[in-house]
Amino acid sequence: MDITLENFPDTLPNLIKDIKNAEFIAVDTEFTGVSRTRADGINRKHTIEERYDHCRNDAEKFQLLQLGICTVAFDKELESYVCRPYCFGVNPSAKWGLEREFVIQASAAKFLVSNGLDLTKVFVDGIPYLREDEEKALIEKEDKFVEGSEIKEDIIVEPEQAMFVEKFVGEVQAWLNDPNPEYDFLNVTGEGNDLNNYERRIIHQTIRSRFPNLSTTSKMGFVQITQSDPEAEKAIRIEKSNRTREEIDKAVGLRRVMDALRSSHKPLIGHNLFIDLIHLYQTFVSPLPPTLQEFTNQVHRDFPCIIDTKLIASCGTRCHSSTTTLQNLSITFETLSEPRIRIDANHQPKSDTAAHDAGFDALITSRVMMQMMVYLNSQLESCGGDREKAAEKLATFINSMGLQGGTFVSGGRVPSLVDEKTKGIWKGLANEIRLNGTQEGVVTFGPI
Amino acid sequence: MDITLENFPDTLPNLIKDIKNAEFIAVDTEFTGVSRTRADGINRKHTIEERYDHCRNDAEKFQLLQLGICTVAFDKELESYVCRPYCFGVNPSAKWGLEREFVIQASAAKFLVSNGLDLTKVFVDGIPYLREDEEKALIEKEDKFVEGSEIKEDIIVEPEQAMFVEKFVGEVQAWLNDPNPEYDFLNVTGEGNDLNNYERRIIHQTIRSRFPNLSTTSKMGFVQITQSDPEAEKAIRIEKSNRTREEIDKAVGLRRVMDALRSSHKPLIGHNLFIDLIHLYQTFVSPLPPTLQEFTNQVHRDFPCIIDTKLIASCGTRCHSSTTTLQNLSITFETLSEPRIRIDANHQPKSDTAAHDAGFDALITSRVMMQMMVYLNSQLESCGGDREKAAEKLATFINSMGLQGGTFVSGGRVPSLVDEKTKGIWKGLANEIRLNGTQEGVVTFGPI
Repeated sequence: MDITLENFPDTLPNLIKDIKNAEFIAVDTEFTGVSRTRADGINRKHTIEERYDHCRNDAEKFQLLQLGICTVAFDKELESYVCRPYCFGVNPSAKWGLEREFVIQASAAKFLVSNGLDLTKVFVDGIPYLREDEEKALIEKEDKFVEGSEIKEDIIVEPEQAMFVEKFVGEVQAWLNDPNPEYDFLNVTGEGNDLNNYERRIIHQTIRSRFPNLSTTSKMGFVQITQSDPEAEKAIRIEKSNRTREEIDKAVGLRRVMDALRSSHKPLIGHNLFIDLIHLYQTFVSPLPPTLQEFTNQVHRDFPCIIDTKLIASCGTRCHSSTTTLQNLSITFETLSEPRIRIDANHQPKSDTAAHDAGFDALITSRVMMQMMVYLNSQLESCGGDREKAAEKLATFINSMGLQGGTFVSGGRVPSLVDEKTKGIWKGLANEIRLNGTQEGVVTFGPI
Repeated sequence: MDITLENFPDTLPNLIKDIKNAEFIAVDTEFTGVSRTRADGINRKHTIEERYDHCRNDAEKFQLLQLGICTVAFDKELESYVCRPYCFGVNPSAKWGLEREFVIQASAAKFLVSNGLDLTKVFVDGIPYLREDEEKALIEKEDKFVEGSEIKEDIIVEPEQAMFVEKFVGEVQAWLNDPNPEYDFLNVTGEGNDLNNYERRIIHQTIRSRFPNLSTTSKMGFVQITQSDPEAEKAIRIEKSNRTREEIDKAVGLRRVMDALRSSHKPLIGHNLFIDLIHLYQTFVSPLPPTLQEFTNQVHRDFPCIIDTKLIASCGTRCHSSTTTLQNLSITFETLSEPRIRIDANHQPKSDTAAHDAGFDALITSRVMMQMMVYLNSQLESCGGDREKAAEKLATFINSMGLQGGTFVSGGRVPSLVDEKTKGIWKGLANEIRLNGTQEGVVTFGPI
């Protein structure tokens, strides 16, 4: 289901409900570039700490453009898992002077475009967002505005404007000196009874500094000057500010999805999930912390259980990286009839949706995770619980792309992560993420 | 006329012919961002040298995405100027490991998209290019490849590969030790009679360092090892290299347009031309020189005459910046019947083409330039050659958006820049570019 600016408000409540009812949630992200991990001239593998630094720099530089979510619920009546994939375009544009600059790699753009991501469309109907700290800064600015304590930046008054300034300052002085002025306001304007923005700013800042007891209000064609009425002006500021606060609240936009995921504490699935997490936190939560430990702690608080399909499929180091790509795993497991999985009728991928669409990839990730775990569980049962033997069978199945390996002895459900009886199966399979090409090979995220 | 990857090869010869026949050529560019000129915290106007630095940084950071050209020829039979606008999508993707990274401002992307530029399309059917230094570096690499003197980077051989290396080194040694080997080659392969790219690279680099007299060739499923035959190998390298050189020559792509413009030495028109020139040279010629003087010298060598419609329309400092935008000038002058201008039938803008399409803006720029100069020339005649009076009339016409100002006394042609009789009219109007917001206000590019 493609979510755009238009259907986002109606979709969000449903998504939040789906997240609440989900057993697992898969995520996938698409962004504007990836730096080469060995471009920095060290002739050895990265440590995971170095890799974190590397990915953090990438996330600061490159921009998230697509977010895929797939909620997975269990339908007891149909004894079937129900997947609901969502695909969100991420619009980097923001208001209130928040300029987002990001880097695009030409090769990454080419890759995204050739996989169907429409770069133009994200700026038209993608969903904007405010990160937590961005929202906070805007609200603080509103607080200052209401108190009248915000800092107003003065612009340079060019020498050519001296005459103009002298003229309106004279008018103001004359109006103030008049013991019986005709009106309790004075309208200041320029040539042809008009003002450009530059002239308006000069009037505002000159009155502000020279006549602190006067107020200025921009009107069509002129600036109106009145005696200050602090109470009334504050009331107007509060009214204005309330409107802006409503807009800010609305502009939080796509971050609501991340907020809902984080507060749900549901098991989070991803394929090579590390890079997705990095981008999600950098985009929606805050600038990333300086150390990997702080980052994994932060993630673990929100997501007590994370599942990396790349790690599970690697079977330790038994499976080669090329057989454990998401696309190959999808092919390997597609003939398995267990567990029963269906896609909600409202969430069927469009006929032309393909790999690397974030919603589609999130769907495939959730499916592959369930199939691998049910397969592994079945092998465990047939091996009398011998984890090494079961892993060996899964590895054979994956390396042969489904042509060799054990058969099912029992089907059914994905082992629960909370049930004490099945929790043990997840040891070494959850809360660890595979980081190929690093010395340690794996990052851990705390106990299951 | 929109030029894409598909019609570029057929269009280029026509464009080159049009450039040769042109009296003037207008250009316009669209790119991915513009930094605020006063963001750097100095509370005074930039000098033009500082502005150059600022624009140079921008050009290094932001990417050209659209190039508009409009050639203007004079049709003597019809006594009419003929405009031929071209609009090129610029594809930043490049091959041979040339990764182009560039910054996008979200606000700029939004602006471009809302003005009809399709960000997705440039990566699909935009025209790639190689800058002069990029082409040179690739050709030098080919020269080294032919000589066998290129530096081949070794990858790290992981400890897990020790067995694999030992095995094929043993095979090679056995083959070399065999006084009567069955074949004059040895095929080395891996598990399942296959090799991944990593294993291939290990074989190549190991043989290279341990057996300098042997050669390796990648084949489907294996690497073939033979005794070196320097002559034959060089012949193969030359053949390969010739194919690559042909591809490089083709990949010069859109730069051919800039090359044709530069070697034509024709008068070049632009509206706020400075920023266009900066982007054109940075994109197609070389990294920009460190000083403004070097840059203006470089431009002047290529374009002995440049015409900035913003400068002409400013009439010194008589006209306000808001009346001299390209859009407003276009409206101001659109009712004038002189000079006669038509658009070549093959180059008519599509019905939905609008302002900020680079081809369309180049067309408007050329039209406005001709109309202003014919108008000014006419006023000069009516004022007995008094330049100040004529400029005053043009200023009145522009500031009133065509409602006030003199009428035509004579129509006809744009004053020639080479004819000694009319050249004088251009004094102070050509080879100067308006740089609003700088202390000097104007950059000069050498004598007319």
